[in-house]
Amino acid sequence: MIITLKASATKKEKDAITKKIEQLGYKPHISEGADVTIIGMIGERAERYREVFEAMDAVDHISEIEKPYKLASREFKKENTVINVGGVKIGTSEVVVMAGPCAVENKESIINIATLVKKSGAKILRGGAFKPRSSPYSFQGLGEEGLKYLAQAREKTGLLVVTEAMAQDHVKLVAKYADIIQIGARNVQNYDLLKEAGKSKKPVLLKRGMSTTIKEWLLSAEYIMSNGNYDVILCERGIRTFENATRNTLDLNAVPVIKKLSHLPIIVDPSHGTGIREYIATMAKASIAAGADGLMIEVHPKPEDALSDGPQSLLPDQFNKLMKELKPIALAVGRTL
Amino acid sequence: MIITLKASATKKEKDAITKKIEQLGYKPHISEGADVTIIGMIGERAERYREVFEAMDAVDHISEIEKPYKLASREFKKENTVINVGGVKIGTSEVVVMAGPCAVENKESIINIATLVKKSGAKILRGGAFKPRSSPYSFQGLGEEGLKYLAQAREKTGLLVVTEAMAQDHVKLVAKYADIIQIGARNVQNYDLLKEAGKSKKPVLLKRGMSTTIKEWLLSAEYIMSNGNYDVILCERGIRTFENATRNTLDLNAVPVIKKLSHLPIIVDPSHGTGIREYIATMAKASIAAGADGLMIEVHPKPEDALSDGPQSLLPDQFNKLMKELKPIALAVGRTL
Amino acid sequence: MIITLKASATKKEKDAITKKIEQLGYKPHISEGADVTIIGMIGERAERYREVFEAMDAVDHISEIEKPYKLASREFKKENTVINVGGVKIGTSEVVVMAGPCAVENKESIINIATLVKKSGAKILRGGAFKPRSSPYSFQGLGEEGLKYLAQAREKTGLLVVTEAMAQDHVKLVAKYADIIQIGARNVQNYDLLKEAGKSKKPVLLKRGMSTTIKEWLLSAEYIMSNGNYDVILCERGIRTFENATRNTLDLNAVPVIKKLSHLPIIVDPSHGTGIREYIATMAKASIAAGADGLMIEVHPKPEDALSDGPQSLLPDQFNKLMKELKPIALAVGRTL
Amino acid sequence: MIITLKASATKKEKDAITKKIEQLGYKPHISEGADVTIIGMIGERAERYREVFEAMDAVDHISEIEKPYKLASREFKKENTVINVGGVKIGTSEVVVMAGPCAVENKESIINIATLVKKSGAKILRGGAFKPRSSPYSFQGLGEEGLKYLAQAREKTGLLVVTEAMAQDHVKLVAKYADIIQIGARNVQNYDLLKEAGKSKKPVLLKRGMSTTIKEWLLSAEYIMSNGNYDVILCERGIRTFENATRNTLDLNAVPVIKKLSHLPIIVDPSHGTGIREYIATMAKASIAAGADGLMIEVHPKPEDALSDGPQSLLPDQFNKLMKELKPIALAVGRTL
Repeated sequence: MIITLKASATKKEKDAITKKIEQLGYKPHISEGADVTIIGMIGERAERYREVFEAMDAVDHISEIEKPYKLASREFKKENTVINVGGVKIGTSEVVVMAGPCAVENKESIINIATLVKKSGAKILRGGAFKPRSSPYSFQGLGEEGLKYLAQAREKTGLLVVTEAMAQDHVKLVAKYADIIQIGARNVQNYDLLKEAGKSKKPVLLKRGMSTTIKEWLLSAEYIMSNGNYDVILCERGIRTFENATRNTLDLNAVPVIKKLSHLPIIVDPSHGTGIREYIATMAKASIAAGADGLMIEVHPKPEDALSDGPQSLLPDQFNKLMKELKPIALAVGRTL
Repeated sequence: MIITLKASATKKEKDAITKKIEQLGYKPHISEGADVTIIGMIGERAERYREVFEAMDAVDHISEIEKPYKLASREFKKENTVINVGGVKIGTSEVVVMAGPCAVENKESIINIATLVKKSGAKILRGGAFKPRSSPYSFQGLGEEGLKYLAQAREKTGLLVVTEAMAQDHVKLVAKYADIIQIGARNVQNYDLLKEAGKSKKPVLLKRGMSTTIKEWLLSAEYIMSNGNYDVILCERGIRTFENATRNTLDLNAVPVIKKLSHLPIIVDPSHGTGIREYIATMAKASIAAGADGLMIEVHPKPEDALSDGPQSLLPDQFNKLMKELKPIALAVGRTL
Repeated sequence: MIITLKASATKKEKDAITKKIEQLGYKPHISEGADVTIIGMIGERAERYREVFEAMDAVDHISEIEKPYKLASREFKKENTVINVGGVKIGTSEVVVMAGPCAVENKESIINIATLVKKSGAKILRGGAFKPRSSPYSFQGLGEEGLKYLAQAREKTGLLVVTEAMAQDHVKLVAKYADIIQIGARNVQNYDLLKEAGKSKKPVLLKRGMSTTIKEWLLSAEYIMSNGNYDVILCERGIRTFENATRNTLDLNAVPVIKKLSHLPIIVDPSHGTGIREYIATMAKASIAAGADGLMIEVHPKPEDALSDGPQSLLPDQFNKLMKELKPIALAVGRTL
Repeated sequence: MIITLKASATKKEKDAITKKIEQLGYKPHISEGADVTIIGMIGERAERYREVFEAMDAVDHISEIEKPYKLASREFKKENTVINVGGVKIGTSEVVVMAGPCAVENKESIINIATLVKKSGAKILRGGAFKPRSSPYSFQGLGEEGLKYLAQAREKTGLLVVTEAMAQDHVKLVAKYADIIQIGARNVQNYDLLKEAGKSKKPVLLKRGMSTTIKEWLLSAEYIMSNGNYDVILCERGIRTFENATRNTLDLNAVPVIKKLSHLPIIVDPSHGTGIREYIATMAKASIAAGADGLMIEVHPKPEDALSDGPQSLLPDQFNKLMKELKPIALAVGRTL
């Protein structure tokens, strides 16, 4: 952490700062220039004390030079984390595809979709039983009934199941039925939920929030990991920008950035990322070329009857065609699918 | 809701759309231009079905023309809502100031700060017992112990208390000790928490999220209101933009916009909104000129020792001076303070 | 400038960096921590060399600690700059109002509006002769003819004139007719235009761009000043964010931030800043409370017939009422109007 | 264009609107719902009159349903535009790579780099002679001297040349030496420059602005096209968002969106788009998978000595390796390189 002082800082103020640094157990490094004085406070988790110094009047600003997350960082673990979910490995050279409807609607339809996406090569079934909707008047999901249908679809097809826990008291319930617990974009900084997921034994799929920086996202992963659960899969799903030609702006740059900063696997959700059916296939291809470890794609046989997110669902035939088109791209970047 | 069709839409597709509109109980209004056909579907809560039509291939896009929230809208209730919190009224011509530390740190300090801000004219004491922090390694608040100290400060000073509930199972606990339940920016779309707050009898202060549009914010208020609690106070606290000269971009435009769209009172938090002490007083003044019904301001006697958000806290003397400077501005816009 | 090295940086790489710093005429300050090494390069305009070091593989990132602009900075000139435009002083305790139509439409209407706004207390007439429009099919302004009408309106009313130069070869022409040369938001980084304005003897009103940070904005002012023209008036006019309830997000935080960082006067344009008539008066009041040195407001007697920006123009009566309402707010913050 | 009226709109106001629509030569389509009345004004370029109605008090808001650009739209021209630049075709199944330094620094270095990138397979040499820099104290380019060096590099290597015109009076000069005239991100709404480029016979490469929506970008292309020059190549180069892990947020979604809305070719610049060397190769791959017609990549043999943008330049060896890696991805999406 580098503390830049105001030009007006007095000798007394400077001394107060260096004394404070020493009290906190660090060694101050002072560099005086003609116009500006900076004081370095370098060492393990110095950033915790950022606000102590920011609150001082003599301080102009603070520059962080160390990363505030630790367990999630590439420095902590050099090799890629591979997460083994019931035999399906996420984070290897094989690209893993999760597919299914936005929401579980009834037993027949989820089993039907599961059968279709399995045939096309998906390994994991997605589908929401608890649905976060911006309007209280929109369909809110089937709850535990939906979880049961997902479990039945797994039994029928052999697909694994990923589904969202929206609230702290869903975590155990979801963990009972699903193989991966999803934390949605709107809950990426719902810290009590993150802590609860951190106490679970099931892997967690952590979606990026609409306006979460990559640093904040990794700090949210750190909440899960520091509670004991190291099996975190990150999922890029679009950020909020000024552009409105797409529902969100899918930020594929996040893939190489995460690969540099962290050892955790990262997948991409082009359905939420673009919000528009006709862009999904193209952005799925780009995701794999960008190095994603997997994809999450919405599939629905009758999007116009879907209870949620119909506009961003592929038809089963479109999904089947896409899966075939993805293979050569995976091969072209040294992976399989 | 206006459905704009693609130029390529066939007669058969158009018929399917009008039939669907009729099935849903609405009357379609068709307007055919040379290049484009639009179909209006107008009536109570037509927007619920937006995705049904967006999911159809013949549809180019949908334009919303009605508001998706109802109870929170100015159309639903013409006159301003006034919320009576133990005698202090929010939403009248009197501007109400809430002040206190970011986090409750210990009994002595909270009583000390409460005494000081009361003397300067604050009516409500703020202070967090549960603290949402982006890093798991930052101070997380004193929990129920902190709530007790807040209640003791109220007893001592007569100030009312507002404090945050971060999780669903905090709501009852917070309601037991506090006069107003705060929902923080990161939880603005934590729907289970909103529903729980909607079942409480205590007023709710709903902060805007970092990247929440005003429409989404009012929909979050609608979650609380549609669960039975009509006493919602909105609080603008800065949005996330590209500008980084301030920690957030305090969006004062939200004040007149909310006043137009909704009957709910709105206050402003210039401490979080700017994140920098020396801008707080100026933006507090601008907030009142913009028509805010109240202010929430952080005050701490030793910001450099604060366990959270020291850099955006006023010193008690600065706060006292500000309160005096705010009075003539309130008068200039026809209010009191 | 602080250079943070990667953990993997070798002794040889560190030596190359310190050697480079010395070659460039600076003294390196090295601080080695357990995990991280930082090297300070402190001194006049060190930031110029940022990219030299960023381009090195051993470097993790650079933190700037000095300001890249100089003439525009508060450090360069402690007292506020006051710009005297034909007797009207901008940057004193008196708030100066500029008003008029978006575009000059014809001689009669500009003289008519000028007469009305003068009567209400405006000191400067605004009106575009050259209009930057996002569509090539929109009205593009009257050109020199419009400039002549502006000059005639000045003659008739005694108001001073501010109008936009969109291109380098407009600068001299605009300077011939107008008292202040406006550089529009879209041209804030049109450097050849800035340089040309820097060679003019007339004051320059520099609008902030839609996505210009305050730092970049001051650098654009620096382009004008470093070419010899120190009379720069900054004008906040709204930035582009995710929020679409207003056309732009008027960023009033910019007022106290500019006051801290720079000695230049700053005015606010709530017409472009909100884009919606009914919010203009409120945000004009907030602007003055935030410390603005002036306002720029669009006024048009028949907004629905305006050739440009009708929706964000006040009616003359509304403007007249606003001018009266602004006075007590100016007084409340120690100014006049 | 759909005009939604306020609930309070009177019969008289409604009549005034329909009368105005008829005066403008359109036929009004009225749909009255229980709560809301909408009036459609449908037909060629109706959007031009948007502000006329927005300016009326009875109008709540306007929804655009037609596209404001025409020549640039896919509706105007169904098949992809192919631009033939001295034998190199842009917009076919062959992906075209433009490479070179950010700025032309001297004759030897530009010829050296040209030779290297040609050997690796680039078809077009990039390099700035006029450099838009946010600071007036940064290197501003060699001007015409730089253009001459570029022309000499073309002669030596057979590469075509693309280089930027920053100002209106550069256009003829740049057209004299270069094969493609580049309009930079900061000038995307410099309309006089766009018009001048529209009068040139040379193809124009139009970069997206930092905060330009896709609609605005296509309107800027329309400025060039409506002045007679149909040979416009769009170039995505990253937008400004809240994320700062990358210098800009490369928006690859723009590629399929442009392909849908327009017939113009689109290339991607991952150097500016990410701003960080180690992400360039990955995002170049993703660009091709996303359907880009070409790439623009910065290459410099000694980035730490580059006079501009060293941190985002590939080393010649890295570029050579990348070109080999791109081929199989191009093949995987049915293209060549």
